Amino acid sequence: MRKLRMGMVGGGIGSFIGDVHRKAAGIDGMIDLVCGAFSSSAEKSRQSGKALYLPEERCYADFEEMILAEKQLPLGERMDFIAITTPNYLHYAPAKMALENGFHVVCDKPMTLSIEQAQDLVSVVEQTGLLFALTHNYTAHPMVVQAKAMTANGDFGKIRKIQVQYLQGWMSSAVENNESPKDFWRIDPAKSGLGGAIGDIGTHAENLTEFITGLRITELAADLGRFGQGRILDDDGNILLRMENGAKGTMSFSQIAAGEENNLSIRIYGEKGSLEWHQENPNELITRWLDEPKKIFTPNGNGLYPEAALLSRIPAGHPEGYLEAFASVYRGFAHHLMLILAGETMGSSHYPTVYDGLRGLQFINAAVKSDSNNAAWTKLE
Amino acid sequence: MRKLRMGMVGGGIGSFIGDVHRKAAGIDGMIDLVCGAFSSSAEKSRQSGKALYLPEERCYADFEEMILAEKQLPLGERMDFIAITTPNYLHYAPAKMALENGFHVVCDKPMTLSIEQAQDLVSVVEQTGLLFALTHNYTAHPMVVQAKAMTANGDFGKIRKIQVQYLQGWMSSAVENNESPKDFWRIDPAKSGLGGAIGDIGTHAENLTEFITGLRITELAADLGRFGQGRILDDDGNILLRMENGAKGTMSFSQIAAGEENNLSIRIYGEKGSLEWHQENPNELITRWLDEPKKIFTPNGNGLYPEAALLSRIPAGHPEGYLEAFASVYRGFAHHLMLILAGETMGSSHYPTVYDGLRGLQFINAAVKSDSNNAAWTKLE
Amino acid sequence: MRKLRMGMVGGGIGSFIGDVHRKAAGIDGMIDLVCGAFSSSAEKSRQSGKALYLPEERCYADFEEMILAEKQLPLGERMDFIAITTPNYLHYAPAKMALENGFHVVCDKPMTLSIEQAQDLVSVVEQTGLLFALTHNYTAHPMVVQAKAMTANGDFGKIRKIQVQYLQGWMSSAVENNESPKDFWRIDPAKSGLGGAIGDIGTHAENLTEFITGLRITELAADLGRFGQGRILDDDGNILLRMENGAKGTMSFSQIAAGEENNLSIRIYGEKGSLEWHQENPNELITRWLDEPKKIFTPNGNGLYPEAALLSRIPAGHPEGYLEAFASVYRGFAHHLMLILAGETMGSSHYPTVYDGLRGLQFINAAVKSDSNNAAWTKLE
Amino acid sequence: MRKLRMGMVGGGIGSFIGDVHRKAAGIDGMIDLVCGAFSSSAEKSRQSGKALYLPEERCYADFEEMILAEKQLPLGERMDFIAITTPNYLHYAPAKMALENGFHVVCDKPMTLSIEQAQDLVSVVEQTGLLFALTHNYTAHPMVVQAKAMTANGDFGKIRKIQVQYLQGWMSSAVENNESPKDFWRIDPAKSGLGGAIGDIGTHAENLTEFITGLRITELAADLGRFGQGRILDDDGNILLRMENGAKGTMSFSQIAAGEENNLSIRIYGEKGSLEWHQENPNELITRWLDEPKKIFTPNGNGLYPEAALLSRIPAGHPEGYLEAFASVYRGFAHHLMLILAGETMGSSHYPTVYDGLRGLQFINAAVKSDSNNAAWTKLE
Repeated sequence: MRKLRMGMVGGGIGSFIGDVHRKAAGIDGMIDLVCGAFSSSAEKSRQSGKALYLPEERCYADFEEMILAEKQLPLGERMDFIAITTPNYLHYAPAKMALENGFHVVCDKPMTLSIEQAQDLVSVVEQTGLLFALTHNYTAHPMVVQAKAMTANGDFGKIRKIQVQYLQGWMSSAVENNESPKDFWRIDPAKSGLGGAIGDIGTHAENLTEFITGLRITELAADLGRFGQGRILDDDGNILLRMENGAKGTMSFSQIAAGEENNLSIRIYGEKGSLEWHQENPNELITRWLDEPKKIFTPNGNGLYPEAALLSRIPAGHPEGYLEAFASVYRGFAHHLMLILAGETMGSSHYPTVYDGLRGLQFINAAVKSDSNNAAWTKLE
Repeated sequence: MRKLRMGMVGGGIGSFIGDVHRKAAGIDGMIDLVCGAFSSSAEKSRQSGKALYLPEERCYADFEEMILAEKQLPLGERMDFIAITTPNYLHYAPAKMALENGFHVVCDKPMTLSIEQAQDLVSVVEQTGLLFALTHNYTAHPMVVQAKAMTANGDFGKIRKIQVQYLQGWMSSAVENNESPKDFWRIDPAKSGLGGAIGDIGTHAENLTEFITGLRITELAADLGRFGQGRILDDDGNILLRMENGAKGTMSFSQIAAGEENNLSIRIYGEKGSLEWHQENPNELITRWLDEPKKIFTPNGNGLYPEAALLSRIPAGHPEGYLEAFASVYRGFAHHLMLILAGETMGSSHYPTVYDGLRGLQFINAAVKSDSNNAAWTKLE
Repeated sequence: MRKLRMGMVGGGIGSFIGDVHRKAAGIDGMIDLVCGAFSSSAEKSRQSGKALYLPEERCYADFEEMILAEKQLPLGERMDFIAITTPNYLHYAPAKMALENGFHVVCDKPMTLSIEQAQDLVSVVEQTGLLFALTHNYTAHPMVVQAKAMTANGDFGKIRKIQVQYLQGWMSSAVENNESPKDFWRIDPAKSGLGGAIGDIGTHAENLTEFITGLRITELAADLGRFGQGRILDDDGNILLRMENGAKGTMSFSQIAAGEENNLSIRIYGEKGSLEWHQENPNELITRWLDEPKKIFTPNGNGLYPEAALLSRIPAGHPEGYLEAFASVYRGFAHHLMLILAGETMGSSHYPTVYDGLRGLQFINAAVKSDSNNAAWTKLE
Repeated sequence: MRKLRMGMVGGGIGSFIGDVHRKAAGIDGMIDLVCGAFSSSAEKSRQSGKALYLPEERCYADFEEMILAEKQLPLGERMDFIAITTPNYLHYAPAKMALENGFHVVCDKPMTLSIEQAQDLVSVVEQTGLLFALTHNYTAHPMVVQAKAMTANGDFGKIRKIQVQYLQGWMSSAVENNESPKDFWRIDPAKSGLGGAIGDIGTHAENLTEFITGLRITELAADLGRFGQGRILDDDGNILLRMENGAKGTMSFSQIAAGEENNLSIRIYGEKGSLEWHQENPNELITRWLDEPKKIFTPNGNGLYPEAALLSRIPAGHPEGYLEAFASVYRGFAHHLMLILAGETMGSSHYPTVYDGLRGLQFINAAVKSDSNNAAWTKLE
């Protein structure tokens, strides 16, 4: 076997999420960055590539050039897949073109601007049979997988109640007045989509909830807020949830929760017990029980289900964090791709896919629709 | 000055909340228990009184007997006030009769079964000019008062977002099947009122929210749950909140949150900072800021406003708990009553009153009405 | 039965520990304060008594007067016991005189200034057969009793390692320069004894260690610090411990640990598991295991031994604190005394006694001796 | 510039620490693994290399072969440095040979078996002028660097008291009976050196203490334990510390602290304030103050010194962990090496060096000597 070759779209020097993708792809030693179209300007793309120790000829002016040029390279040299790390409005086109030209895709979320684009990507993935990973990184934490496994195994009994929140404070003040335009796309409906905070972080909360519980949200009542002066897109939201099995819950997300850094937290209550997990302290899974004391699970610690234990790279007590969970999405994707390149098949993928991306868009759409209707109950497709 | 004399309604031996009232009244050495109608049976009332070291002649068969008999005693002997610690449906009658016979009142919450009863008590209190304390104990924690003072002083800026929850798990299983009928009244609409969990604990969440923020809830959308088999009253609820100043929020409460003990928690976000407080660890007030590190305040610790510092009985680092906060309601009431007995006046009462009781009923009514209307937005009176 | 009658020595208005004793004695409704010699001046004592609603004739000028006068009162009126809440150097004389005149004693710690005095009190207690409670309050927390029970039941296996610390910061600056002389006695060897911080808080750490483990400290090597300018008594200390069963450990205490409030913490490691407890968050007992996840016990929560469950006054999730644990010492003492007054006997006392007081003096002496010998190993008597 | 080329000694597939070195070197995209002598058997080394996607010709039988063969390769191909990830007794020889053949070195700790070897490596490094990084990874956490910066800037005033502990439980049972011999070298004095746990983890505690405080330990009194049956080397220890400025402290370390995972924690007290840091929750620095509330700093959060802020790879609230801190040692080393390859110089190295390695051996020697002398005070060289 050989290391996989990654080409990158977006993620020029200074980009937060591009750097995250590169570090995540680098941790496990399975992937080499071999080329990129890192920026909207050819010159900046070249500078970024140089800083990443890439040869000049593989720093491309744009993703179209990259896809076409790489396709011309010998099989033993050309990139295997592209990683898309651009703003939301620049996900769909490179993803589609890459797939249509035979390249697998890793894509940031939310997957597209609209449901129609999302459905189209689903079709293309199904037609081409290529791999598509969506970087819903939080579901790859060992303690989140332990939570999912315990829930699936019925440890908590039938699920009744959910509380999920994703709270940030960085848009408390008017980012619109920042000198740097780096985040301007986030508040521009044309570039961000129908949803603001709901797309950026609400989709993580939705994905985490459905991932752990294995239950679909069937309807929701969403009261979105736009607290920043002149802001068109939501920067805050409160949602009532109803799940397919009768469970109820609340979701709260915000980018104007002053002082919060990146507080994604979830509590799930079943008939026999409950769980609690906090992204900012991800190496603990707190569980409570009707008849036993509170138990706290840790990565690679005692009492884990195998699927959770497998995710840890290092022994118990050695904390892993955001990058490692992100890396586990890449590792899952890379394992799958290596198997396929070796001519083998894999039953199921252990990473989020194009269907998670479509689901995210369905969620955004339903919430925005509910909100525009004074938080009326709205069904998810 | 002399110690105040308390008569008790309800709270026979074995009662949780009656014992809490007695211990709370005893901590600060300002109040003596002198008589009681502790139980629905005269014999049980007498036994309870004996266990509490009371003389037999002041253990009464019922509250009517107690109020009338005590009224006949000389001024220097008779009780000054009654403490009502019975189930919800037995608050209104003794409160009204006590007031009408010249006794001040301390009453447990929710104050009455209906808004009409609540409004009537407001009238009687206003007509008689007697004192009426409602034991919303959680607002008397030093760190809750610090939270209120910081909010009132504008430390957090204009409030934008609220998250409040009150989670218990003790009704996860069918308490209806318990051998002991002690808690049966809680699931009986005739004895508990329109609300189940919302009356028992939701009103605490409502009171805490309005107390700290100084803001009124103007409308709400409530989705209540009845998860226990055959349960008529709610045992769970999720509510969207809108506040008078435009802030939004969620409230979640439950008595089927398996494994939770008594998790009342609140987070409040303003334009400049935010606060977080947990009843189960009440000696910490966590604050977050746009430009400064997280700061944690402690009772009698550094950086407190005077009104918070005044509430502590012991030095920083010596935890106070549930009973002490409960006792602070009694202490505030006792201070006020002593002033009045000494012929002085006090500007404002530092304890919850009959108006908090009325507010609680308004909240219950609005939530139950919203819920019966599929969580439609409903205004609070 | 009747309520017990307490006379108090020391604890005038403004005293921290006197007020603690009164509140602790008041919580459970078993004890009435009936008289006191509250201060070194007769006038101040009278004022304190008045503020405590006592009749003037039972506010005494000094403890000698109180003991002699109370002895003359009829049996149905006179105090049953005295509570000694004075500085260290004023424990011995009132304790001895009270016992010799037939009064039981509750005494603050450290019990006396010297081992000789401590041994003398042991003799007097043994000769008179009267009760003597020492207020080592921390051992009465439900989670400390759970820790002791688990250790005694072998849940953790043979104990191997101990870490105990008691850290305060209030003497970081020169309290010697304070305007108020209230704490001056603490830094005066004539009034405080051989030890400074070691007597004030080190004895709590020693008592907690031997209480939970059931093991005696057999030798120690103590390196005491005197960081405050011109301070004669220790304000800090680090000690190596060796226990009777071969376990080893460290103790660290300080009153110059800047920023610490009242951080008494202990960790105990056995062959099969370990425990951790923090006084500032006393309602959690953290346990760790070779083969199971971390388990956290809570007062009145799941999985407790009966002796721990019995100590809680209120349901799980309703935090109790410093005063309640202090009150449990009084409650244990009061139960014992009521039994005796009723002519019954009790197998063993559930509160610290004169022997704990003697042990504390042995510990202070050994540590001071070791320190004066450059931390040489020194045996405890 | 180009990526650096790393050759590895030890760290075959299945090795914990070898894998850590590879992942740490891979995160920041500055280093490629190009060759290795991964195992004591040539065949196993080849298999490990294959699993790491290396060409067969660069999987060597032993480090001697690797160093000599790589030296023959063209400058543009040969490795730049070796990473030594073998057991303790196999650090000295490859480090020395690599340096003498012109290769820079990254080495795991403790650096050597004896002080003499350590001093010899210091000489060789000084003679060759090559770089030598020691992977004391814990000092590269952003919050540890913040702690060092705050201390150096006098925020806490003069340091008075230190508490440091490193507690693990994995040797609680007889690892000697494990079927797998993987860890046998740790309990074999010939392979581990004079110290057991003190070398493995005690040196981390020593390094962390001197790093943050900037103070030297001048003397210590060490009471080591050997609790595992038949164990020759220490598996536990308690140490009194005296620092060059008069501060005092305790160190406690253990590998028989049942239930502990990897609990490295430190508390440092100055005249004006204090700090607390826990490796298992590394993204918090807790500080306490004489006159202000407790403040908690977070990576990339508010109020950091620049040297701490620089270390974070991702925004506040996105936890980094063990691997990232380890990677920061590699990153510091790689930056330095790239500068040198570019012909530039750097004032000071921002990573632990051969001198830290020598210091660790001095510490081990002093502690073992003190222990063999019944914990007598022993000076560090």
